[in-house]
Amino acid sequence: MPKHDKISMSVIRRLPRYYRFISELADSGEKRISSSRLAELMNVTASQIRQDFNCFGGFGQQGYGYSISFLKGEMEKILGLNKVNNAIILGAGNLGKAIALHINFVEKGFCVKGIFETNPLLVGQEIKGIRIYPENDMEKFIADNNISIAVLCVPKNSVAGIIDKLYSNGIKAFWNFSHFDIARKYSDTVVENVHMTDSLMTLSYRMNEKLKSEEKTEE
Amino acid sequence: MPKHDKISMSVIRRLPRYYRFISELADSGEKRISSSRLAELMNVTASQIRQDFNCFGGFGQQGYGYSISFLKGEMEKILGLNKVNNAIILGAGNLGKAIALHINFVEKGFCVKGIFETNPLLVGQEIKGIRIYPENDMEKFIADNNISIAVLCVPKNSVAGIIDKLYSNGIKAFWNFSHFDIARKYSDTVVENVHMTDSLMTLSYRMNEKLKSEEKTEE
Repeated sequence: MPKHDKISMSVIRRLPRYYRFISELADSGEKRISSSRLAELMNVTASQIRQDFNCFGGFGQQGYGYSISFLKGEMEKILGLNKVNNAIILGAGNLGKAIALHINFVEKGFCVKGIFETNPLLVGQEIKGIRIYPENDMEKFIADNNISIAVLCVPKNSVAGIIDKLYSNGIKAFWNFSHFDIARKYSDTVVENVHMTDSLMTLSYRMNEKLKSEEKTEE
Repeated sequence: MPKHDKISMSVIRRLPRYYRFISELADSGEKRISSSRLAELMNVTASQIRQDFNCFGGFGQQGYGYSISFLKGEMEKILGLNKVNNAIILGAGNLGKAIALHINFVEKGFCVKGIFETNPLLVGQEIKGIRIYPENDMEKFIADNNISIAVLCVPKNSVAGIIDKLYSNGIKAFWNFSHFDIARKYSDTVVENVHMTDSLMTLSYRMNEKLKSEEKTEE
């Protein structure tokens, strides 16, 4: 049994990356891998890998390397990818569409059952076989389709009302592309925020700093 | 002068969030704000705000609150948003399109000059007034348009070759939506990775853990 009662978020955030590398190794037909070889592939230290894996129960015997298929299966269990959670996407604008088209939800343990949108011109259309419904149908749809997660791709000014509706209909998990602070309002929710523009601003900062340090060197 | 020689990445990653809140305050016409009021709005401690702001030189006098317009201007300078960097987007698929349509690059200090794509059916089209060019024109375009950043929205298997071409043409900054580890290959680059599916897997993990702890409570 994995002994993961109090695993730090920093270890948890490294787990998807481990899973990506292990999946690729599995796809390429490899059977076993040592922590030092995996460390080299992933550009981390072997000791970090062993420490991280120990948080989840170890996954293998020292000296023999890890069985890739066993590792993959265990990681899927830990990440909850061996079950399927039903999801809806809120907002069929550019971002909502791209998320629906680009992300392979099924591989990540989610099934998108519907997309909800206020723009009547979009209602009735389909994206990758997923139908766009009017927002008024949302509450009944959530109950009928056992929805447990909402993907928020709506503009910031319309988020607050939608969250209240989702929460009062039992949605407690959010993949949040808006800047609304859901976890603050409803503390018993699970929220993953994706703040793309924050990442772009961080890039701008780091480019600026790099330029300044290069100018200094030239002086 | 801001005294930001050795600022930790965790402080830097909080800066875009500060900037978002300060910009909203400025838009709503507010003039001054105390660290305690800002702390309440942002759901952090006033002491963290003062500490973080001190890393960048302080921004104000204790007891008087911060001038919002001054704060906004200083943050723009630190983030490099007061200059414009020319960018290209690689890949006009769903993700590339959504990024082009959804992100207001100009507000973030970037100007997207062109989109590059191998699919001949897409070449010649425009997204938000930005033209899609064939990938073969990329090298000349970079030189002619003083491009300094590349936004990578291409599938993983075609990234490696593109990076080599971009790097050899002087591109050292990447907003990277692919899973290719650019900084490892070219250590003198500035790279911001956006790993959306890692975030989705983390959400799955946390939902799974929440469910388990709820089941335990019910036992």
